[in-house]
Amino acid sequence: MRSDVIQVRTGRRATVHDLTGDCERFVAGESDGLLNVFVPHATAGIAVLETGAGSDEDLLAILDRLLPTDDRWRHRHGSPGHGRDHVLPALLAPHATIPVLGGRIQLGTWQSICLVDTNVDNLEREVRLSFLTG
Amino acid sequence: MRSDVIQVRTGRRATVHDLTGDCERFVAGESDGLLNVFVPHATAGIAVLETGAGSDEDLLAILDRLLPTDDRWRHRHGSPGHGRDHVLPALLAPHATIPVLGGRIQLGTWQSICLVDTNVDNLEREVRLSFLTG
Amino acid sequence: MRSDVIQVRTGRRATVHDLTGDCERFVAGESDGLLNVFVPHATAGIAVLETGAGSDEDLLAILDRLLPTDDRWRHRHGSPGHGRDHVLPALLAPHATIPVLGGRIQLGTWQSICLVDTNVDNLEREVRLSFLTG
Repeated sequence: MRSDVIQVRTGRRATVHDLTGDCERFVAGESDGLLNVFVPHATAGIAVLETGAGSDEDLLAILDRLLPTDDRWRHRHGSPGHGRDHVLPALLAPHATIPVLGGRIQLGTWQSICLVDTNVDNLEREVRLSFLTG
Repeated sequence: MRSDVIQVRTGRRATVHDLTGDCERFVAGESDGLLNVFVPHATAGIAVLETGAGSDEDLLAILDRLLPTDDRWRHRHGSPGHGRDHVLPALLAPHATIPVLGGRIQLGTWQSICLVDTNVDNLEREVRLSFLTG
Repeated sequence: MRSDVIQVRTGRRATVHDLTGDCERFVAGESDGLLNVFVPHATAGIAVLETGAGSDEDLLAILDRLLPTDDRWRHRHGSPGHGRDHVLPALLAPHATIPVLGGRIQLGTWQSICLVDTNVDNLEREVRLSFLTG
């Protein structure tokens, strides 16, 4: 298995960050197998969705409704309401495993692999890419 | 890795479509490894749940509550409220990776592998099945 | 692929049960590859999150809000409101696939692999651990 860590700058706002280009470069030249995308952070997730037509903002808006940034959370470290970021990975898991054929990720036309990070206290994130050939 | 695409007819209504039989046939005769189920569409997900006792309808009903079919969505292509279908894959990921032993998927008695498709504009869907042996 | 089933006692209350130690022991001594964690039950899921600082209780509380324990569910077996447990695995999938390097799971500092079981009718659960080397 080949495995590598990339650095992503997510900044001080909730972010949907497109990782597709990084993933494509990582598996280019490989044969067939599974690409595993994993975020080693407790307040971020991986989502496969369309970007650039409003759905990234739609996702952040609905997460504000489903996991409100208020004082209900027992986890009280960090910015006000930050407890919601720690529940996020239960609903948006920090891992995705996606098929690769001939070095090409088998995404549909409108799919992108994205890091979803609602945490405003961390500016830098790591993402681990692993390729298991078969 | 062996990989194949199957066609699924989902029709003009939100659907929970059971893929278990297709998956079982795909890995029959294989040895041990991981089955990866992947939907190359931006408005559908994979769920592992019990079917036939009401939970498929329960899932579609709660998705109507969590992701309402109204005009809140920035993504505005397709039928009214279709933007919610583009957020769905963030909560119901379009991939699942499940262990196989001796050509048999290690599902529990009440588990089925299902395509969840709330998109009413697409009648036909593809699902990619891949088996990585170990 | 090496695969084994562990038994987990979850008791009569909704539970977030930390499996990290079991997973670490399972892959200790292995080289590089993917760890697959799979629950063969239709009313439980796997989440990767921080435990011990309130987020486990926060998760159970928000699940009570997103999937209420009331009489809305068509699935009517078991305790009152049990139908919500059958929808849970659609939002908290019963599988997770996580990279392992040199026999060590590549979790972040604050991440734990957890079984989430809101079902109060089952006291004992099985979890299947599988390791596919590469």
